[in-house]
Amino acid sequence: MSEPDFKDVLFEQYNIRTDLALESHQVIVEQDLPPELPGVKVHTEEEEGITITRITVENDIGAQMMGKAPGNYATIEAPGLRTHNREIQERIAELLAKEIEWFFEQAELGAEDGVLVVGLGNWNATPDALGPKAVENLMVTRHLLQMSPPELREGLRPIAAIAPGVLGLTGIETGEIIMGVVDRIGAKAVICIDALASRSVDRLCSTIQVSDTGIHPGAGVGNRRLAITKETLGIPVIAIGVPTVVHAVTIISDAMDLIEKGSISSPEGELPPKPVQFSIDPEAIRGNPKKAQSAPPTPDRRQLIAQMLEPYFGSMIVTPKEIDLLIDEVSDVVAGALNVSFHEGVNYDEVFKYLS
Amino acid sequence: MSEPDFKDVLFEQYNIRTDLALESHQVIVEQDLPPELPGVKVHTEEEEGITITRITVENDIGAQMMGKAPGNYATIEAPGLRTHNREIQERIAELLAKEIEWFFEQAELGAEDGVLVVGLGNWNATPDALGPKAVENLMVTRHLLQMSPPELREGLRPIAAIAPGVLGLTGIETGEIIMGVVDRIGAKAVICIDALASRSVDRLCSTIQVSDTGIHPGAGVGNRRLAITKETLGIPVIAIGVPTVVHAVTIISDAMDLIEKGSISSPEGELPPKPVQFSIDPEAIRGNPKKAQSAPPTPDRRQLIAQMLEPYFGSMIVTPKEIDLLIDEVSDVVAGALNVSFHEGVNYDEVFKYLS
Amino acid sequence: MSEPDFKDVLFEQYNIRTDLALESHQVIVEQDLPPELPGVKVHTEEEEGITITRITVENDIGAQMMGKAPGNYATIEAPGLRTHNREIQERIAELLAKEIEWFFEQAELGAEDGVLVVGLGNWNATPDALGPKAVENLMVTRHLLQMSPPELREGLRPIAAIAPGVLGLTGIETGEIIMGVVDRIGAKAVICIDALASRSVDRLCSTIQVSDTGIHPGAGVGNRRLAITKETLGIPVIAIGVPTVVHAVTIISDAMDLIEKGSISSPEGELPPKPVQFSIDPEAIRGNPKKAQSAPPTPDRRQLIAQMLEPYFGSMIVTPKEIDLLIDEVSDVVAGALNVSFHEGVNYDEVFKYLS
Amino acid sequence: MSEPDFKDVLFEQYNIRTDLALESHQVIVEQDLPPELPGVKVHTEEEEGITITRITVENDIGAQMMGKAPGNYATIEAPGLRTHNREIQERIAELLAKEIEWFFEQAELGAEDGVLVVGLGNWNATPDALGPKAVENLMVTRHLLQMSPPELREGLRPIAAIAPGVLGLTGIETGEIIMGVVDRIGAKAVICIDALASRSVDRLCSTIQVSDTGIHPGAGVGNRRLAITKETLGIPVIAIGVPTVVHAVTIISDAMDLIEKGSISSPEGELPPKPVQFSIDPEAIRGNPKKAQSAPPTPDRRQLIAQMLEPYFGSMIVTPKEIDLLIDEVSDVVAGALNVSFHEGVNYDEVFKYLS
Repeated sequence: MSEPDFKDVLFEQYNIRTDLALESHQVIVEQDLPPELPGVKVHTEEEEGITITRITVENDIGAQMMGKAPGNYATIEAPGLRTHNREIQERIAELLAKEIEWFFEQAELGAEDGVLVVGLGNWNATPDALGPKAVENLMVTRHLLQMSPPELREGLRPIAAIAPGVLGLTGIETGEIIMGVVDRIGAKAVICIDALASRSVDRLCSTIQVSDTGIHPGAGVGNRRLAITKETLGIPVIAIGVPTVVHAVTIISDAMDLIEKGSISSPEGELPPKPVQFSIDPEAIRGNPKKAQSAPPTPDRRQLIAQMLEPYFGSMIVTPKEIDLLIDEVSDVVAGALNVSFHEGVNYDEVFKYLS
Repeated sequence: MSEPDFKDVLFEQYNIRTDLALESHQVIVEQDLPPELPGVKVHTEEEEGITITRITVENDIGAQMMGKAPGNYATIEAPGLRTHNREIQERIAELLAKEIEWFFEQAELGAEDGVLVVGLGNWNATPDALGPKAVENLMVTRHLLQMSPPELREGLRPIAAIAPGVLGLTGIETGEIIMGVVDRIGAKAVICIDALASRSVDRLCSTIQVSDTGIHPGAGVGNRRLAITKETLGIPVIAIGVPTVVHAVTIISDAMDLIEKGSISSPEGELPPKPVQFSIDPEAIRGNPKKAQSAPPTPDRRQLIAQMLEPYFGSMIVTPKEIDLLIDEVSDVVAGALNVSFHEGVNYDEVFKYLS
Repeated sequence: MSEPDFKDVLFEQYNIRTDLALESHQVIVEQDLPPELPGVKVHTEEEEGITITRITVENDIGAQMMGKAPGNYATIEAPGLRTHNREIQERIAELLAKEIEWFFEQAELGAEDGVLVVGLGNWNATPDALGPKAVENLMVTRHLLQMSPPELREGLRPIAAIAPGVLGLTGIETGEIIMGVVDRIGAKAVICIDALASRSVDRLCSTIQVSDTGIHPGAGVGNRRLAITKETLGIPVIAIGVPTVVHAVTIISDAMDLIEKGSISSPEGELPPKPVQFSIDPEAIRGNPKKAQSAPPTPDRRQLIAQMLEPYFGSMIVTPKEIDLLIDEVSDVVAGALNVSFHEGVNYDEVFKYLS
Repeated sequence: MSEPDFKDVLFEQYNIRTDLALESHQVIVEQDLPPELPGVKVHTEEEEGITITRITVENDIGAQMMGKAPGNYATIEAPGLRTHNREIQERIAELLAKEIEWFFEQAELGAEDGVLVVGLGNWNATPDALGPKAVENLMVTRHLLQMSPPELREGLRPIAAIAPGVLGLTGIETGEIIMGVVDRIGAKAVICIDALASRSVDRLCSTIQVSDTGIHPGAGVGNRRLAITKETLGIPVIAIGVPTVVHAVTIISDAMDLIEKGSISSPEGELPPKPVQFSIDPEAIRGNPKKAQSAPPTPDRRQLIAQMLEPYFGSMIVTPKEIDLLIDEVSDVVAGALNVSFHEGVNYDEVFKYLS
């Protein structure tokens, strides 16, 4: 009934604070665990400057190890996304469209099945405005198709789009608004676009994740509290997320770890290995998930971090100064990819033209 | 099923294109009709620089004459609203709060009954952004009260707020989104804030109308098509509107009228009387509403206006250059008034403090 | 010393209120005057959907007839500019770049001569924000070149850009700020980008004018008072202008004219010819410019228009509702064209990539 | 000639990265150095919730210890500034106005001497937009006074204001634009408003510094490179700064220090003292400034931090999520204070009314 103590939750979890399945998996790999984890399948494709990783979390054992719900996660990593180069942006949009289409197939979505696109986040807070900005660039067609004769609607998908705002602005859980609208318009699937938090700075605005596991409480920049999933909505939910911030708690904790481990492991000035904060209990890998437990930060560490971030704490974020421009560009890419994947037979170049 | 031909509708009605009951009534008065119209009650109060007019349309005869649905209309006229004077803005907010409270009483709304405030309009089109801007300044409380113990909620009204966007951006009729959300959150009343079109330039951002007749298709700057009324939502709908544009069609038609009538009636250079375009059939006043008919513009006139406004026609609007600033200020006034009227026992000065 | 009475000036001139040389010339042609005017040369090129007209006002006689300073005026007319089609936008940018390059040649500007681009107008007033928006998309290079070794700067032009704001925001005439900056950075030419007023709605955001006569007091949406010309700055001034508004005064006056003339000339319901408000004295064409005089509007007409536009009058403008989007797109086109024409050897496609 | 290697400069200085004289002084006090430093005078006043500290750096010895140029620094600390309470905002504006007036007296500025207010920073990057936002709310009067008869101008100060943008947008050093404008309009003083970086999160948007030492290269969020001082402009420069970000480099370095020192000094779980990174050589205090040297971070530390912030490094900033709202409010406060201090005889309440 009462609101959870946000600080405590954040503290207990701060060392696994990432919205990306890819980052969860990398931690496991870095810990020299067997690359063939039970319940987790990984497939990677590369082209110049771009890596696509498809992870399937097959069951609860995989889910527990990864800290991610069972389902499919496709991740496009493209450092070029932050170089303001239109050609690279177009290429990423093209690849993203293909991933989205794969998820449509998994969801058995028909070519004329209506989709509601939801731009999650707060349009007043730049790094959280990715979702609202992306939906502004969508080709919305539901109202046009409703007014067309049936023969003209063939092969065309009715697309609707909303940016429902955030709890603090509306007083309503985003999930409630989405449920209300889905009920009313009879959409066959929901696509949520959201700004995410990642663990590392170099992913900001250069990684895009697509998944079919929905949006879970506490995820994203804006910390939603109600799940937006197939279970709650009754229809498939595809989530498209882009990391736009690192939580200050995360970066401080990483810095502290680096010093603690570095001062021991590298007496001759060698760099310690990249920070590893996920505590994966080998028991979990062996099939005893109940025992798996991440070691909570010690009380001292908690107090130190809280002291540094007073009075804002959990709401302090780390972003590049040029975040406004980066958000503009990456939301264009997401909207462009959606426009392509929605409208079969619509030429890609044709569509990109209409992005502002 | 098919979309109405917007041009024709606009043309047939262009000479009664106003969203303000007050303007409808003024036309009748200017035509020297009996001031005591059957089915229409008018009451006026004045203080320095401010006039409040309360009009009740009691039945269908009144409605037909006025071109307005039966119900209550309160209008605050305050030319000072466009002078960027904070003191005047605060006084208007205070008076507006009282009018809103009167409508709450009429709707028999309890002190703890939840209200959904809806900011209608397109945030990307400055003169249509009044509603979305006003809801940004509201004190939204629903989520806070949900998390408080019952004894603390006493006398506090849960307020939720959304800015649902416009059909062209979302593909969904605004009315559908509101219905979906109302169903979901169980609000006891809806308040819609909307930018209106008036007939005369001197009302822009200096007149505020409150009514309990809801929002009707074709009203407002954005031309909605689905009614948002007590009939469609099942709960009372209070509409707060502020004229922010005059349609170019209206101003051109008025100009043409002035010349046609002026060149005949004022040979000695005298000014003709203020333009009167409402054709009120005396039959209507005498209780034969069926015969009342506004004379449609002649075909020539239509073509002339269409020629002048090609290729935009109905979407051409007339605004002051400084509309951006005016919208900011008047949306603050509306939000301030709502904050006062929502939260009983909250001191007025207290509330205005929190407006940005 | 004292401010001119803005109303009177507007009134005396309202029937020739256009910033486009092309519109001035069309009036003359419509009046069946000899197409070969003394002192005015006109050359036209067409391609699908696009017309380019180059007008040279050769001397004072031409200037008086046209109401435009002696110099060169190139105008691109492209109704497709308002259709949100990226391909058309790119084609116009390409053609505009060629026109700008022609003006560079006329100004004898060297390939490495520095240019200051000035985005005129008020970023807070949507239709006046064209200039500030365009400079945001420019590839600014002056600071980069200053830090590069001389051998790398070869063939590269130092570009600087400012958006100086408007008198009401800064308290400083825009011309003064430009003079101050030009003195300081030693630019060899100034390019001003400005939102213009046109006479007809169908030109809004679909016509672009380039000229070498600078910016004159009272031109543009923002009504500047200090000339920004080669005479005042000491270096060539190229002005790029796009009509974004029609003054309400203009459209009302046109409407009145239509009725006055229409009621006489078309008794059988025929449309009157397009309105012609420029009173060109045949004396002017015959070389007696002193006698040329436009008939001022009659006192009645003035009062009628003033009455309709109270209390805003001269600041009332007519725009399409979707002006925000149109301004975004056309400012991208102008910035894209400038980026091409500035940076010789830079491939066009290369440049357009970097526009957001 | 060539650009400095920004990374190295930041690294060498990261442990003294603050724009606030108050923070410099606090470090000295925390190090148990004699509170009566040679060359530094400190005076403090308090009222409920507000502390005003006036620091005078009297000579080069003081300057070297403080890392701040000789001159006066007044700092208002008011945690209430981030609570969205209008009453507190008004009180701070009042106190800030008095501090500004004191600086006017020091500068011997006459009541009718013209002032140019400069809003430094990038309007596209939220935390850097403080200056441009503040100038938008100023009562600019220079142009009005120029058009008034002399007898009406008595006691009125001509105020002009510009937001010159940043080097990356304009290609021109901000200092150059200011010099050009000052030359042109003959201002008698310049006031610069700037977003600053502080060392600690709890100062963000709750501390305001006024100083007469101008703006120095590398200060502020935007890292300007040209000094804007009395020396460069020839007239007094008053700088008003508000911390809006902590550099990520600073917060990471602080976190590392906490761990390094904490693990040694607090074996029983006690918190270590607040981090102290200023290395003040006691020699400096004793009058041997040449020897004073801050210990550079060790190479390991540098590499660790660089690794964490790749590829953005110096441009990574830490802010609260709600920075957009905080910037809006604090820029209102700064503008309100300036309006009061500029216009003698203008009642304070009168002025605050006109803030949007």
